[in-house]
Amino acid sequence: MKLTILGCHSATPKASAYPTAQVLEIRGHLFLIDCGEGTQMQLRRTKVKFSRIKHIFISHLHGDHFFGLIGLISTFRLLGREAEMHIYGPKGIKEIIMLQLKLSASHINYPLHFHELETQEPKVLFEDEKVTVRSFPLSHRVYTNGFHFQEKPGERKLNHPKAVQANIHHSLFSKLKQGFDVENENGETISNDSVTDAPDPALSYAYCSDTEYFPAVIPHIANSTALYHEATFLEEHAALAEKTKHSTAKEAAVIAKKAAVGTLILGHFSGRYRDLSVFQEQAMEIFPNTQLAEDGKSFEF
Amino acid sequence: MKLTILGCHSATPKASAYPTAQVLEIRGHLFLIDCGEGTQMQLRRTKVKFSRIKHIFISHLHGDHFFGLIGLISTFRLLGREAEMHIYGPKGIKEIIMLQLKLSASHINYPLHFHELETQEPKVLFEDEKVTVRSFPLSHRVYTNGFHFQEKPGERKLNHPKAVQANIHHSLFSKLKQGFDVENENGETISNDSVTDAPDPALSYAYCSDTEYFPAVIPHIANSTALYHEATFLEEHAALAEKTKHSTAKEAAVIAKKAAVGTLILGHFSGRYRDLSVFQEQAMEIFPNTQLAEDGKSFEF
Repeated sequence: MKLTILGCHSATPKASAYPTAQVLEIRGHLFLIDCGEGTQMQLRRTKVKFSRIKHIFISHLHGDHFFGLIGLISTFRLLGREAEMHIYGPKGIKEIIMLQLKLSASHINYPLHFHELETQEPKVLFEDEKVTVRSFPLSHRVYTNGFHFQEKPGERKLNHPKAVQANIHHSLFSKLKQGFDVENENGETISNDSVTDAPDPALSYAYCSDTEYFPAVIPHIANSTALYHEATFLEEHAALAEKTKHSTAKEAAVIAKKAAVGTLILGHFSGRYRDLSVFQEQAMEIFPNTQLAEDGKSFEF
Repeated sequence: MKLTILGCHSATPKASAYPTAQVLEIRGHLFLIDCGEGTQMQLRRTKVKFSRIKHIFISHLHGDHFFGLIGLISTFRLLGREAEMHIYGPKGIKEIIMLQLKLSASHINYPLHFHELETQEPKVLFEDEKVTVRSFPLSHRVYTNGFHFQEKPGERKLNHPKAVQANIHHSLFSKLKQGFDVENENGETISNDSVTDAPDPALSYAYCSDTEYFPAVIPHIANSTALYHEATFLEEHAALAEKTKHSTAKEAAVIAKKAAVGTLILGHFSGRYRDLSVFQEQAMEIFPNTQLAEDGKSFEF
C-alpha cells in the first residue's frame, strides 16, 4: 500500500504549496482522494501513472478539495481515455462538472459515472474481491465525508517444497491457499498450516479531511494501518480551529490514539505557519508515530 | 507597458507547462487575460501584485483558458479582498462561477461584477482617461473574443527650464501639457512646441487566442505595439490547425505582417513539440520581429 501526497495545504494555493489531493495505491487500484487545483500537474510531477485512476473520491465541496477535478476530467478526454471513471462526492458535484463540459462544448468520450452522496451514515462506495471503500461523515462547515480503504484478507501462502514433500497433488494447491486441509496422494489428511503460511496482513487507510475534532469517526477508522487526519492549526490557535471547524495537531493525535491506528499522517496545514515541524512535535506528545505530509512525498506500508 | 506570461501552452497542463494566462500592466492597470488552471500559483511565482487586478478578460470557455478562474476568485475572498472585480467573458461564465460558490457555501465579500459577451461585433469593454479595452471576434470552435488594449495619448512633456526662461507663469503649465499656446508674463504668445516635447507614444497590445487564420481581425489590431497570436501548430500540421480551428506559426506571422504590428509574440503551443524554436524560425521567414512566449517571461515595451 502506497500513499502519494500531491498536495497537503489548506485554502489558498501558494507557489509551492498545493491544495489537497492524494493518490492511494492499494491492491492494484489507484484511488484519487480529493482534487485541488493543480492536481493534474502534481500527478505528472510525481510520475503517477494517472490513466490508471478509475475512482475519484471528493470529501466536500470547498474549492481547495475539488477545483482541479474539471481539469483532470477534461485532460482525460483530450488524452483519448476509454476506461470508465467513477466520481464519488457530495450532491452537486455532477452539476458543477456537467455545466462546464456543456458550456465548453466538450463531449466526454469515456464512461463518466457520478455517485453523489447525501447520507449522514457510513456507506460502502466500492467493493471488489480485494478492497472495500467506505465513506463516513465528518463534521465541517459543509457536508463532508471521510473515506476508509480496507484490503480484504489475502490467500494463505503456499509453502511449495513442503506441499510437494507431503505428496499433495498440485490440483489441490488452490484449496490450500484458501485455507482448507486436503488429502494427499496416499489418502492422508494434511493439515493446512503444515504446508502454508499466514497471508500478509490486510492493510487499511483512513482519510479525515476536513473536520473539527470529531470522536464519532473512531469506530469507522479504528485500527487502520495509517490515518491521514487534517491538522490545520497548532495548539495556540485552538479557538480558531473550533470556530472554523478544523482540527489542531493535538486533536488529530487524540483521534489517532483513541482509534489505535498504526501511523498518523498530518496535513491540511494553514499557510500561516513557517515551521511545520511544530505540528509533529505537538502531535507526538500524544501519539508518537506521527508523520507530516509533504507535497510530492510517498508513504509505503 | 509590461506583459507577463503566466502560461502559454495549449490543452493539457504538464508538470512545467501552464495553460493560457497573462498579465498586462498598462498605465497603472493590471489586466489579467485568460486564467487557465494554476494561474494563481503562477501569479505568486512571478511575484505579480495580483491584489491589484480589477479586470479579468476571458477569451472563451475552453478549460485551458478559464479553469483557474474559480480558484482565483475564491482566493481573493479568503484574502479578505474589498476592491471590486470585473469579469468579462462569454455568456455562461457567471453561471459556472456562481454555481460553484453556492455549492461550496462561499459568500463573496467583495463586489464581483460579470460582463457577459454574446456579440459578434467589436465592443468597448472598459474605458477610463488612460486606457481603452475592446473585444473583437475570433474564429474558433466555440464563441471566442480577442482583446485590444489601447493607451490614450499622454500629455505633452513640459520642458521646465525653457518654460521658466520664456517667463511663463507656473499656473499655465498644465495648459502647456495639454498642448495649448499660452501668453507669458510680458503678454507675448509662446508657441507650445517651443517649451514642450511630444508625449510618449501611446502603446497598444492585441491578444488573439484561440483562433484559426482569420484576417478579419486585422482592422482591430492594426499597428499594435505588440500582438500575442496563438500558434498551436507548426507548418507540417497545417491541416490539423485548420481542422481544430487553430493557427500555425506562419499564419500568425502573416496576420502580424498584414496588421503592421511592432512585435509578434507566439504562444499556445501544442504539447507535441519538443523544440519550440522552430515556431520562431517559421514565423520569422514572414515577420522577422517574432518572439516566443514562455511561462514566467516578461516583455517590456
